[in-house]
Amino acid sequence: MATPAPEETAAMRRAIELAARGLGRTSPNPVVGCVVLDSAGRTAGEGWHQRAGGPHAEIHALQAAGERARGGTALVTLEPCNHTGRTGPCAQALIDAGVARVVYAVADPNPTATGGALTLARAGIDVEGGLLADEAAAGNEAWLTSVLRGRPFVLWKYAATLDGRIAAADGTSRWISSPESRADVHRLRAAADAVIVGSGTARADDPQLGARVAGLSDDEISQPLRVVVDSGATAVKAGARVLDGTAPTLIAVAEDADAEHLEGLAPLVRLPRAPQGRGLSIPALLQALFARDVRSVLLEGGPTLAGAFLAAGAVDKVVGYLAPVLLGAGPAAVGDAGITTIAQALRLDVTATARLGPDLRITATPIRHARPEEN
Amino acid sequence: MATPAPEETAAMRRAIELAARGLGRTSPNPVVGCVVLDSAGRTAGEGWHQRAGGPHAEIHALQAAGERARGGTALVTLEPCNHTGRTGPCAQALIDAGVARVVYAVADPNPTATGGALTLARAGIDVEGGLLADEAAAGNEAWLTSVLRGRPFVLWKYAATLDGRIAAADGTSRWISSPESRADVHRLRAAADAVIVGSGTARADDPQLGARVAGLSDDEISQPLRVVVDSGATAVKAGARVLDGTAPTLIAVAEDADAEHLEGLAPLVRLPRAPQGRGLSIPALLQALFARDVRSVLLEGGPTLAGAFLAAGAVDKVVGYLAPVLLGAGPAAVGDAGITTIAQALRLDVTATARLGPDLRITATPIRHARPEEN
Repeated sequence: MATPAPEETAAMRRAIELAARGLGRTSPNPVVGCVVLDSAGRTAGEGWHQRAGGPHAEIHALQAAGERARGGTALVTLEPCNHTGRTGPCAQALIDAGVARVVYAVADPNPTATGGALTLARAGIDVEGGLLADEAAAGNEAWLTSVLRGRPFVLWKYAATLDGRIAAADGTSRWISSPESRADVHRLRAAADAVIVGSGTARADDPQLGARVAGLSDDEISQPLRVVVDSGATAVKAGARVLDGTAPTLIAVAEDADAEHLEGLAPLVRLPRAPQGRGLSIPALLQALFARDVRSVLLEGGPTLAGAFLAAGAVDKVVGYLAPVLLGAGPAAVGDAGITTIAQALRLDVTATARLGPDLRITATPIRHARPEEN
Repeated sequence: MATPAPEETAAMRRAIELAARGLGRTSPNPVVGCVVLDSAGRTAGEGWHQRAGGPHAEIHALQAAGERARGGTALVTLEPCNHTGRTGPCAQALIDAGVARVVYAVADPNPTATGGALTLARAGIDVEGGLLADEAAAGNEAWLTSVLRGRPFVLWKYAATLDGRIAAADGTSRWISSPESRADVHRLRAAADAVIVGSGTARADDPQLGARVAGLSDDEISQPLRVVVDSGATAVKAGARVLDGTAPTLIAVAEDADAEHLEGLAPLVRLPRAPQGRGLSIPALLQALFARDVRSVLLEGGPTLAGAFLAAGAVDKVVGYLAPVLLGAGPAAVGDAGITTIAQALRLDVTATARLGPDLRITATPIRHARPEEN
């Protein structure tokens, strides 16, 4: 693209910040932020897509700008949509508002929404794409991945000791990781559409799986759907904390499981078992969630479920909280992933590291080459 | 201390650099560096303790400075010695050279060598201690720890996957860690007096345990003593790579082991077995090495020996090479360390992290409070 004006780059960076406010609330839509500059390059309006079904970012920003949008520039993190969904097409709204120029960061890969840039250009508007595209794409990582793969984006989170253990030999694990790390996990939960645990974790920890973020009220936090993979329908019992009223819950059981005792406790989804081995088909689980508009999943383990997701090639990103602790015994962070020799090892790229109190947080992305997704 | 002149601080920093050149060659002595400034504050001579039995750093620096030392200042990383060992006392040499001022970083904790500062002051020399003391102490970490604990400093090094495994289920492990990490391990070996492996590693990997450092010739690298802990005398065989001629080797066996087949292959040391569990008494092993002038040890695992050292409270520092790899099966980095519940976990402080190619290097120090050393 042509060299953007400095105020355009600043406005796009602001739009990316605004977009992030929608994380966890907009699925099946992306998060989008928009800043409208007036014809003199001053901020005239800001907006972001706040929740699915609500107005798009451009509409909010144009409303805030009012007449000052005329002859101005709209900076949008995603190519404006061209289709009439639950809200009108944004391309038309920008044309109607009389903006002279539209700069977007990332092209819309969604086949039903794409074409907005062309519509704008045909209407005589100066259109450019690609400004801060990498930053904007990172902010929409989950949604973009879900469009690409046709299933929810999966972030696997684990907390382990330096020797890779998630609990001591007797099963005790409170607290391996630090308060800072645990607070960070709550932020991940709030940004995800769904949180998944397996039957082992449900049985051992009776987790509540809600998101609590310091400084934010309950209204300000988006609670994820709580999903328990309970293949045999033996782990979740009446009174489990995951069944409290703070957020919806879904229990995934095998098609052939005896799950009558769960009827009425929480919605159930019956899924085929994995072709080999124990547990449910991971692709079927992800499809069931996708059908429920889940676009981002936080997988919280334990080792059996993590191994199954890894074996299925269904982990898009890993966040590991490494506590500076050694145990010498106890369960490992990852159970059987079908890897028996070093040549089959799942390799990752470390994309970021950070200190969280005494802990290290490692963010990594699986290197996709030889491990196709299971079908 | 009084505010040092800028050229004194710079000279001390240089002396700390010079001292590091002796790592791996000076035991049972510390590493020491010295810079002599002339009366105008210009560098007149530099020196470092190059090897046990050779001249001390001050002697080298004074020789280089010659008459320019008169009226000048000596910067020394460690309090000048006061005793006549294999070389004369440095305090007297500084007096004889006519230096007007001596600034040292760290006081000498060694009871037989201490008192140098007092001798210098009594001779009318202006003496100050403490300049860059933390940096100088870090450079002499192994020796200072060995004086404090009366046993060699132990640095435990491991390389593992993110899920804490050192090999795949079938035992294959080449290469979990990156070339950059492996080169770093060779630098650790060259700086250590001895490298220790257990029988499991000797059997599985047949390691040579030599130090190879890119850009340095064999003469420029100090090879550590290679120590195999082979309690039952069953792991080391004739023809093992650890028995080649590149460096001395010591095989530690149990007092009651049938080790006749090892006689003539390498020096043997017979040690008592650990009071509980398998293997040798770790304190007895460390005492045996201390008696052989070993002041720093690089413990290269595997998990059984690492667990035994950790259980004995005999690890002073940990360097972990974490490869961004997941395996889901295979041996863990640490075996039984006598820890069964989370409250007994060995906790560490992470003191540094670094990226080495794709890997992360984590440096950590055990927090010593509730785990006294085994007697």
